[in-house]
Amino acid sequence: MRQDKLIVAGREFRSRLVVGTGKYPDLELTQRAVRASGAEIITVAIRRSNIGQNPHEPNLLDVIPPDEFTLLPNTAGCFNAQDAVRTCQLARELLDGHDLVKLEVLGDARTLYPDIPATLEAAKRLVADGFHVMVYTNDDPVAARRLEELGCVAVMPLAAPIGSGLGIQNRYNILTIVENAGIPVLVDAGVGTASDAAIAMELGCDGVLMNTAIAGAKDPVLMASAMRQAVAAGREAFLAGRIQKKRFAEASSPLEGRFF
Amino acid sequence: MRQDKLIVAGREFRSRLVVGTGKYPDLELTQRAVRASGAEIITVAIRRSNIGQNPHEPNLLDVIPPDEFTLLPNTAGCFNAQDAVRTCQLARELLDGHDLVKLEVLGDARTLYPDIPATLEAAKRLVADGFHVMVYTNDDPVAARRLEELGCVAVMPLAAPIGSGLGIQNRYNILTIVENAGIPVLVDAGVGTASDAAIAMELGCDGVLMNTAIAGAKDPVLMASAMRQAVAAGREAFLAGRIQKKRFAEASSPLEGRFF
Amino acid sequence: MRQDKLIVAGREFRSRLVVGTGKYPDLELTQRAVRASGAEIITVAIRRSNIGQNPHEPNLLDVIPPDEFTLLPNTAGCFNAQDAVRTCQLARELLDGHDLVKLEVLGDARTLYPDIPATLEAAKRLVADGFHVMVYTNDDPVAARRLEELGCVAVMPLAAPIGSGLGIQNRYNILTIVENAGIPVLVDAGVGTASDAAIAMELGCDGVLMNTAIAGAKDPVLMASAMRQAVAAGREAFLAGRIQKKRFAEASSPLEGRFF
Amino acid sequence: MRQDKLIVAGREFRSRLVVGTGKYPDLELTQRAVRASGAEIITVAIRRSNIGQNPHEPNLLDVIPPDEFTLLPNTAGCFNAQDAVRTCQLARELLDGHDLVKLEVLGDARTLYPDIPATLEAAKRLVADGFHVMVYTNDDPVAARRLEELGCVAVMPLAAPIGSGLGIQNRYNILTIVENAGIPVLVDAGVGTASDAAIAMELGCDGVLMNTAIAGAKDPVLMASAMRQAVAAGREAFLAGRIQKKRFAEASSPLEGRFF
Repeated sequence: MRQDKLIVAGREFRSRLVVGTGKYPDLELTQRAVRASGAEIITVAIRRSNIGQNPHEPNLLDVIPPDEFTLLPNTAGCFNAQDAVRTCQLARELLDGHDLVKLEVLGDARTLYPDIPATLEAAKRLVADGFHVMVYTNDDPVAARRLEELGCVAVMPLAAPIGSGLGIQNRYNILTIVENAGIPVLVDAGVGTASDAAIAMELGCDGVLMNTAIAGAKDPVLMASAMRQAVAAGREAFLAGRIQKKRFAEASSPLEGRFF
Repeated sequence: MRQDKLIVAGREFRSRLVVGTGKYPDLELTQRAVRASGAEIITVAIRRSNIGQNPHEPNLLDVIPPDEFTLLPNTAGCFNAQDAVRTCQLARELLDGHDLVKLEVLGDARTLYPDIPATLEAAKRLVADGFHVMVYTNDDPVAARRLEELGCVAVMPLAAPIGSGLGIQNRYNILTIVENAGIPVLVDAGVGTASDAAIAMELGCDGVLMNTAIAGAKDPVLMASAMRQAVAAGREAFLAGRIQKKRFAEASSPLEGRFF
Repeated sequence: MRQDKLIVAGREFRSRLVVGTGKYPDLELTQRAVRASGAEIITVAIRRSNIGQNPHEPNLLDVIPPDEFTLLPNTAGCFNAQDAVRTCQLARELLDGHDLVKLEVLGDARTLYPDIPATLEAAKRLVADGFHVMVYTNDDPVAARRLEELGCVAVMPLAAPIGSGLGIQNRYNILTIVENAGIPVLVDAGVGTASDAAIAMELGCDGVLMNTAIAGAKDPVLMASAMRQAVAAGREAFLAGRIQKKRFAEASSPLEGRFF
Repeated sequence: MRQDKLIVAGREFRSRLVVGTGKYPDLELTQRAVRASGAEIITVAIRRSNIGQNPHEPNLLDVIPPDEFTLLPNTAGCFNAQDAVRTCQLARELLDGHDLVKLEVLGDARTLYPDIPATLEAAKRLVADGFHVMVYTNDDPVAARRLEELGCVAVMPLAAPIGSGLGIQNRYNILTIVENAGIPVLVDAGVGTASDAAIAMELGCDGVLMNTAIAGAKDPVLMASAMRQAVAAGREAFLAGRIQKKRFAEASSPLEGRFF
């Protein structure tokens, strides 16, 4: 398995788990959970985190040093294309030209689902401006393909609403996105527990992004360790080629054409 | 996590994954998959495996040395209590008094579901005869409790039919069995992929037993590794305390009382 | 569809919905809900209902006249074979030799799951005593077949715990029971809403029994009407032969061998 | 229930089932199935059906008379906004000014999922041109709300890919669309059997549209009857107020916060 790497925008990663830094009570726990997760890409909500904007407050980069981790600034909290583009540009300035970003343009404060037309527009502008765009999207295969055509470097369909912990609601859509994609597909949002992450990987996804599932667990550091292993387990199961489902060991009873 | 041990009949185990040795093309692959799984308890179908009955044929114990692994002789292929009891007694003789066995009394050649009345009878006789009985059962909480009352050291409810790979069909039943049990509960049969194993552990099971899911995978050694990590991931997620499911991050919308 | 009849113990019924009479605030609502359900077989908990035992109290038979409905006395509340047998005998006396009964022997006050060994014993004794026994059981195909072999006239596997409203938890088991059975199979317990009843019928069941789902609805009479139509809809869909499931309209993409 | 009407664009309907006319071997069977369904709104693929364009061929309107049914011309087969708009205009001419249409702009020939940006554009133009637009969309709540804001008279989210028969894949999304909507929501596409239709109605949808599930059944006329009753059953169950799901009859064990 030594050769199995996630490659995004030409960068290579051993870990296929991407984690966020929100919702922790303090930076010390943030750091411990991040390290336990084994994640190499750490996403940071530019509008909610201090990565240097406020020089006199604790700086996230002190516990997530950019020379050790790949930072992934995200546009959480942006509800239109213009805000999202500006947020990415601000991140690039703060991070000395860092051009890998996670775009999200929200369409709804309740569901936190993306606004697809605005996401398409922002993606277009960011790509034109030289960014490498990983993009949060819904689980619509048509939207995912459109975002790839615009030049995004990874598509990140939601499993379920952000912070819901419901797990993958529509496996067929995620599978179709994976089948169609020529770029990495990472499930983003909605993972609640370890098996959810394993399922995403078993569907053939290239990675999983999560924040609440770890930060909101009773023991975030232990849950981070669980997620690290779940992503690895799901990836290996995918590569190992699972047995076919059948109703019985010996029977050749097909599962198709049944009422379920 | 160093303290988290599976304890069965007074024996302590670090691994919560129990694997079988059937369906491999040769003993060399059996050994490699078993080692990759990290399992410490290895179940052996006495009626189908050579552990010394046939002195001139390859002996399974050469690749699964009893001083390194805990062997768990099982009664696969027995369709009545008498056969199952005798098979356990034969195993005890062949293994120099080894008294930890896995009882299964099948009720049906198609489903390979247990015959519960015959299982109860065999369990009673084996316990009286000094065996430590881990027992394959269906997912009926009443049967599971009865088997515990008879003195079994672990109950092993099926997730789905043996060899089906369908995963846990009735999570509520498994959860109820776990809640009721004073002895270890290991899901046995029906696991198909890594996430299935993780789900079993997240429900609070003490372990998972599988054979076909590993031996029947395209790459059994890699799948064994996946399962090792999936069981650990599910266990840690269970201990870490997952976030509650909710429809949306902010909303307090309850999930109950809905049509699903 | 005029010819499609449910036949139990030689009696013919147009309706495939069996309803209970418990949990209603008064007999008037009981009657209205029963009539709206279109049910012809009405099950009555002998230990909880007055069908003549208490001459000075309201008699259920006044609103469910035995010349219009087929009464199905049941042994709800019995936790051993002896009590169940005696309850059936009492019912037969009260109902002038009526010999069609629904046997349930409970194994657990929390789950209300059946005690299978005790159910087998009671069934044997009731059959020997001349009863026509419809029997509540768990969803174990082996137990269901055994009960048929003992001479029961219908098997009634649970969908989920009595009163839970969870719907069918293990469709494979119900399907297997249906495939194996030479006598009618009626899902009993756990139905929560109309689609649950339709699903049971689509699996090939011969009928559905429910009480709480109707009596506990906000509008029991309207829910009874919903259930009447749902059972008919599910039955017709089963007979009509549904389309095969496939991932896409045109594609021949198989559903098997996937991770779900 | 006499008062329970579906109201679309000011027109009242007793039936909440909308059916298509494609995939039947002949017009006679089309007519019989349509009548058995009880549907009052019949959708017609303008690009595939003869409603007068070819005067010398059998005319669909002979078996679906416009004075008896409400025709709903649809734009099946259109892959861009321009084609869809023109198809609606053609339908209006052929049908003497009939302005109720079903818009679909496809984004993908494999999934037949909608192209949301093109659907938004076409909806805008059709509304401006005086059409009453019922619109096929994916199950994204943000897209559904946007289409309502543009002036559509009904949103029609897919349950699963057209012709797949998979049933509702994401109940949460359909529920959210229903909760948000001020106009009727009809599930469109993906229904396979009667229970799927009932589930859609139990989620609070105002109606269901289907074609393949009926036309592709072994007995389309019987399946049409099943669907008629399933939609009615689901609607009544929704209005009747189902019991809450719980793990056990007596227990107050909550379902939330579990691993499933």
